[in-house]
Amino acid sequence: MKTSERTRESESKLLPELFHLLRPHLSALDAFLDEQVQCFESEIKDKVDYCIDTSGKRIRPSLIFFSGWQGEEIIDNDLVKLAAVVEIIHLATLVHDDIMDMADIRRKQDTVAKKFGNTTAVLLGDALFSHAVFLSTQFPTPEVCQRVAIAMRNVCSGEIMQTMQRGDPDISLESYQRVIDLKTAELFYVSCFLGAKLSGEDSKFCEAAGQFGRKLGIAYQIYDDLTDLFGSQEKIGKTLGTDIATGKATLPLILMRERLDETERRKLSSTLAGEIPADIAYWLENLAQMGIFEEVKNTIFKEITQARTVIEPYREIPAVAFLETMSELLWNQVVALKSDQTSN
Amino acid sequence: MKTSERTRESESKLLPELFHLLRPHLSALDAFLDEQVQCFESEIKDKVDYCIDTSGKRIRPSLIFFSGWQGEEIIDNDLVKLAAVVEIIHLATLVHDDIMDMADIRRKQDTVAKKFGNTTAVLLGDALFSHAVFLSTQFPTPEVCQRVAIAMRNVCSGEIMQTMQRGDPDISLESYQRVIDLKTAELFYVSCFLGAKLSGEDSKFCEAAGQFGRKLGIAYQIYDDLTDLFGSQEKIGKTLGTDIATGKATLPLILMRERLDETERRKLSSTLAGEIPADIAYWLENLAQMGIFEEVKNTIFKEITQARTVIEPYREIPAVAFLETMSELLWNQVVALKSDQTSN
Repeated sequence: MKTSERTRESESKLLPELFHLLRPHLSALDAFLDEQVQCFESEIKDKVDYCIDTSGKRIRPSLIFFSGWQGEEIIDNDLVKLAAVVEIIHLATLVHDDIMDMADIRRKQDTVAKKFGNTTAVLLGDALFSHAVFLSTQFPTPEVCQRVAIAMRNVCSGEIMQTMQRGDPDISLESYQRVIDLKTAELFYVSCFLGAKLSGEDSKFCEAAGQFGRKLGIAYQIYDDLTDLFGSQEKIGKTLGTDIATGKATLPLILMRERLDETERRKLSSTLAGEIPADIAYWLENLAQMGIFEEVKNTIFKEITQARTVIEPYREIPAVAFLETMSELLWNQVVALKSDQTSN
Repeated sequence: MKTSERTRESESKLLPELFHLLRPHLSALDAFLDEQVQCFESEIKDKVDYCIDTSGKRIRPSLIFFSGWQGEEIIDNDLVKLAAVVEIIHLATLVHDDIMDMADIRRKQDTVAKKFGNTTAVLLGDALFSHAVFLSTQFPTPEVCQRVAIAMRNVCSGEIMQTMQRGDPDISLESYQRVIDLKTAELFYVSCFLGAKLSGEDSKFCEAAGQFGRKLGIAYQIYDDLTDLFGSQEKIGKTLGTDIATGKATLPLILMRERLDETERRKLSSTLAGEIPADIAYWLENLAQMGIFEEVKNTIFKEITQARTVIEPYREIPAVAFLETMSELLWNQVVALKSDQTSN
């Protein structure tokens, strides 16, 4: 991987320019999201406003703007609206996730559940979902609403499966892949597919953009799971090893499990099943010694490479260069994760 | 009210025939709902199946079939699909309600929250919402999806307001009316409006049918709130006075509050605010002595009468007779509630 890693790193200078180009589009999105608060009943506007947090990474909106890229100057209202739909759905899932995880803090402020209580948080999530659906009906084609609704259902299905799997140490690699495909990659897929579609691209490219999104989403989720076990604690801003402690078998743990001897494997099983206290330092050490980090990294790079291969034939479409650069961003983050680990 | 009550009672013999006519439509709905389970990922089908409980009263589907009535023999697939959309949304709200109320039992079986845990229940509710939205995009007109999405958002807004009001003894009559309009009447409105619309009725009648639905929904919710304080405990199958104990100021309590002297009023306030234990027997006795039951009943009858007045000018449309008979059903239930009380 060395050579390609170097190539990617040298390309990363594109990124600041990329985000400079994106800025007016994201500003239009922020303004549109602010307006949406006004659509809710006056009694609950302040609560909705609190949910529509604008400090997120905006990955899905960025994918939408890039998939439908028509130029820096062209702010396409339909793309802005679609970005709002997908971002609001994403925010609604976070509101509900934080109830289930009993999380108190997200992005340095109280979670909606902590601030307004679980009951109101369930309902606020529902209201956000409903409003996103309403916005998705405001397009010239019913395809937007149809695809958004299917994506929402799949995201929920993926999360239900993940909940069912929690504490089960014997999750197969296939089950893990299926869950991340549904809970994460689905919304990345629909972002890229519909972004291209709304810009009038032909259906072959829309499908290719969608597939790019799906692969990037898988890569992103594996990366996100990896940061629970390998990130620099200070930089990522979360406690390492919570997935071990809460019995969530992610890719690194599944790969490690396959290589442990029977005694160790039973110990890991009991840990994930919550039968014995989680010795996080011990497992982190094991993961490091077994070279799991490199293996997971390679899986991520493979997904990113596949994502890029799918859109390669459409180089003449401006979206492609931007989507490729988006994939650089993730690539670089994965590379940076290694540096953090080394410096720890 | 005596005369009109007698009239209503004599008309109630229409009801068995009404439900006989409705049966093939409700059977088609049940079959369609069963099919929907197959749309979910295989891993979660059994859970979705548990949520799609077919033992409910099916009030909203009945309103849809009657608003779009074209004859006993004519099973209209679009009406069946719309009935499924609205019923699934209703079921999703019940799944989420039962989490918030920490309810263990609904319709004689474990609630979804009790059976699968709160986390899965939040997600199952979300998945049901999403699937209802998907179904609502499968109509020739985007109006169905648009109106369903707005109704969903309003239902959630109403429930959020209700949650905010819990424990507040000073809720105004207007606030109470606003909450029940959003959380209940909205879905009744959309059921009747879209039922008529999908059957090709002109927009004037669709709006009249919708207004009938809204008024009936308000009457229904006031009735439902009344049964918490005046129903026969055995017949309704729930403990009386839970709204007093949980600080929910419904119409009877708001009306009573206005008539109490200052000392008593302060006592009620402290009860609803949860500052002192709820002396339910005492307040039930007060409600009875003050004639609140009759007053609330009159409010319900007034709403039902207004509902009927709105559709009266459209007598030539077959839907009207059926909708009127639906309103009889509620009227009779309110009358029956009195008999229960007397016999207690």
